[in-house]
Amino acid sequence: MALPVIGTRRMSKEQYERVLPSLRDALLSAQSRLQKDKDFSLAVIVTGFPTAGRSEIVNQFLEWLDPKHIRVHAFEKMRKQARSWPPMWRYWNTLPARGEIAIYFMGWYEDFILPALFSPKKAGKHEQRVIERIRQLERMLPADRVRILKLHLTVSSRTQRQRITSLRSSKLTRWRVTREDRWLVKHHDEVARVTKRCLKATHTKDNPWHVVDGTDPQRRSFAAGNLLLGELDQGFKAATRAPARHHWPEDRQSAAVQLDSRRAGIADAASFQTRPLAGEVDDDAYKVELERLQGRFALLTRRSEFQKRGAVFAFEGMDAAGKGGAIRRLTAALDARQYNVIPVSAPNPDELAHPYLWRFWRHVPDRGEIAIFDRSWYGRVLVERVRDLTAEADWQRAYDEIKEFELQLAEHRIVVHKFWLAVSKQEQLSRFKERDEDKLKRFKVDPEDWANRRFFDGYATAARQMIQRTHTDYAPWTVIEADDKKYARLKVLRTVCEAIERALG
Amino acid sequence: MALPVIGTRRMSKEQYERVLPSLRDALLSAQSRLQKDKDFSLAVIVTGFPTAGRSEIVNQFLEWLDPKHIRVHAFEKMRKQARSWPPMWRYWNTLPARGEIAIYFMGWYEDFILPALFSPKKAGKHEQRVIERIRQLERMLPADRVRILKLHLTVSSRTQRQRITSLRSSKLTRWRVTREDRWLVKHHDEVARVTKRCLKATHTKDNPWHVVDGTDPQRRSFAAGNLLLGELDQGFKAATRAPARHHWPEDRQSAAVQLDSRRAGIADAASFQTRPLAGEVDDDAYKVELERLQGRFALLTRRSEFQKRGAVFAFEGMDAAGKGGAIRRLTAALDARQYNVIPVSAPNPDELAHPYLWRFWRHVPDRGEIAIFDRSWYGRVLVERVRDLTAEADWQRAYDEIKEFELQLAEHRIVVHKFWLAVSKQEQLSRFKERDEDKLKRFKVDPEDWANRRFFDGYATAARQMIQRTHTDYAPWTVIEADDKKYARLKVLRTVCEAIERALG
Repeated sequence: MALPVIGTRRMSKEQYERVLPSLRDALLSAQSRLQKDKDFSLAVIVTGFPTAGRSEIVNQFLEWLDPKHIRVHAFEKMRKQARSWPPMWRYWNTLPARGEIAIYFMGWYEDFILPALFSPKKAGKHEQRVIERIRQLERMLPADRVRILKLHLTVSSRTQRQRITSLRSSKLTRWRVTREDRWLVKHHDEVARVTKRCLKATHTKDNPWHVVDGTDPQRRSFAAGNLLLGELDQGFKAATRAPARHHWPEDRQSAAVQLDSRRAGIADAASFQTRPLAGEVDDDAYKVELERLQGRFALLTRRSEFQKRGAVFAFEGMDAAGKGGAIRRLTAALDARQYNVIPVSAPNPDELAHPYLWRFWRHVPDRGEIAIFDRSWYGRVLVERVRDLTAEADWQRAYDEIKEFELQLAEHRIVVHKFWLAVSKQEQLSRFKERDEDKLKRFKVDPEDWANRRFFDGYATAARQMIQRTHTDYAPWTVIEADDKKYARLKVLRTVCEAIERALG
Repeated sequence: MALPVIGTRRMSKEQYERVLPSLRDALLSAQSRLQKDKDFSLAVIVTGFPTAGRSEIVNQFLEWLDPKHIRVHAFEKMRKQARSWPPMWRYWNTLPARGEIAIYFMGWYEDFILPALFSPKKAGKHEQRVIERIRQLERMLPADRVRILKLHLTVSSRTQRQRITSLRSSKLTRWRVTREDRWLVKHHDEVARVTKRCLKATHTKDNPWHVVDGTDPQRRSFAAGNLLLGELDQGFKAATRAPARHHWPEDRQSAAVQLDSRRAGIADAASFQTRPLAGEVDDDAYKVELERLQGRFALLTRRSEFQKRGAVFAFEGMDAAGKGGAIRRLTAALDARQYNVIPVSAPNPDELAHPYLWRFWRHVPDRGEIAIFDRSWYGRVLVERVRDLTAEADWQRAYDEIKEFELQLAEHRIVVHKFWLAVSKQEQLSRFKERDEDKLKRFKVDPEDWANRRFFDGYATAARQMIQRTHTDYAPWTVIEADDKKYARLKVLRTVCEAIERALG
């Protein structure tokens, strides 16, 4: 399959100057509408051969539009800093908020193209996976209201050589040819082959590549401008059908009352088995075992192999299941420099303006560090599902998106483990009552909790489905029977130790 | 001067349990008020000797208060990542937003204590500067509504040795003693000497150190809790006198009409000399010179010495002075991976909830990178002063704060240069008219601009004072006569080249 090339006919300066004003005018209107409605954002990927006009196109966009709402991103593959984080981390961290435009030089295609050029043997083994990752990202982003426009600028090997020669022949312009350009031009055939393979593998119906002929400067600008305008127009059309939500429903309680639990697909009411209170761990034995496990955990995280890895532990469970207490028993074993506890609650406006996983990507741990999430990205398939805060299509697709997210962490050698703290309905009630009576625990009491309690069975079902659909080798769930707090804390610690030991081998 | 030590008397468990509930109750109320009013934030610094109970105190705070609004930070001095940025960068990036509490293990005192312990000779030379930097930060933060509570936990050398021995004697608790602890205990006298020097140099009336005896666990917890409560209470009192501003005035125009220009201290109306239009640069000569300077600039930034540095260029000037155009002529010479253009406008709510310079610290460039600010931190002494958006006391102190900020960048070997693009009143008017007529430039037209124009003379005076007060060796201003755009662009490029050449030597 050869992709059609746009903008091959030449365009005179006069022609260009005749048609340009109305294009610029339309682009400006479109940008200001985007800015105002904030219904989606746009990520523009620009790839191409040297001298085909990549930078020129980007500069053109910046001149035509209001640059205050455009950010340009370019990364350097070999930067040490970036290697500390999973490859997709830097793209996630730069995703435009709704209403904004981001332009990426190469963007996530760098992860395909650069290895394929510079270490082809090693890259071959991973190529299929890189493609999968890209396709998955490009499925998710538009669903999360980040539209993607992919431009590839092409130019014949002959034109390219001529341009380079002409630039180098003058003292004045010689600086424009970088060492990298020279390498790419010298290896033109190889570059063309890799590019073709990349484009072919990632050209999809929803996210097609637009190949623009870079030979004629006027023509390519005009073509690129029209593609940008077309993408924005399509975005407006899609947004008319489904405008974005700008606020998190504040009045969740009243929404909850109206909820038909069958609508959320929660039919069977069932609870996790929890450890009977009779089996309580005795106080002295608990203290000794806690100290022992904390020691084991501490020593594991000090091992040099762990410094090359990192860990993510996610805690989910009903209100009052004891997540906070279990987490504090973990952190008490650690040096404060090693860990971060990230409490997760309703998204703020800035988070709402970004794709769902954005706020979690930002907390991915660096090498040797531990990120502990007190509630997590699973909120989408728990509270958001049960309380009807998110459309079914969105939480349904979250299972796969979450698995991919966790896979990327695991591929980056981060230890990922997830805990469901299961508390029985009865035990939860007695803890609620205790909190209500103890004013020192009043910060733990939220009217929401009582409201949530009426959805206990719905949560239990959602949790069971969540575990079934997202329990993987690389990011397993452990259900913690949490009616007995001491038992639960010890089991969490033991599981964490075993997870790290397994990883370190 | 010896600082008084708090909490030396012992406290029995029974006593403690009797007094604790009312302390916890008061702390919870204070936190929830802080959370609600968002009038200030609190940074708690915890230093001290091993076994004196630093971690225990922090865990105590996390248990007593709602941990959702507390973040704990600890840094590792020797982390490569951090060394890429000026020392204060990581503290700035973690400052709590108003309503929040941040706890720092050592915090900015790390920059004093660790070098003094581990490389005393080298540290000696810089110590005075480190102290200055700390004192400056601790003057600025409270003025910007970040209160600071400094706790130092102390314990006698004998108690310390006993505790370490006892922990190490049991297999169960041995892990609690780290290699670092052992080093610190072994060098107790040295540690004590350095600590004393540090505390003495940074104990001020407004930001005193509180030395807490860590011998008795109950007593130290109670003392630390009371200090935390006292700090919060003082914060509320101060906030009653001057509540925080939560919104940037949206209706600046109407505010402007009421402004008495003398109130803003702007009496003399004067304008910068700008290059007469008669002296216009000829088109062909401009193109050649532009290409030549861009080449010079590009090659400079590719030099290996520059990779160990970085640059910050700030552009200020009246509306329509040509900042955007001059910046685009700079970036056209650069690889997109090297630079970032940061457009600065009115602060968003998140930025308003942080100290003024916070949003600029976040954009400090990494090694080898260039950050170009289209408007900058000087907004405080320009638009905010002229349009009466900020209290005089606040913009007056900004001169020193800005100089300190720039000094820290320069000390980190970042090239800092600032440009004032001076346009005459008459030329500005003709550019405004042109923009109004050209609908493709409509994004550049803001009703604000016309309003600002009425303050032209005020801006000119504010700009002149700004330049006088913040023109330094390490971060100089260059006034660009900007009535002739081509002349201005060439002068900017030339100045940038010269600044980098001077720095690289």
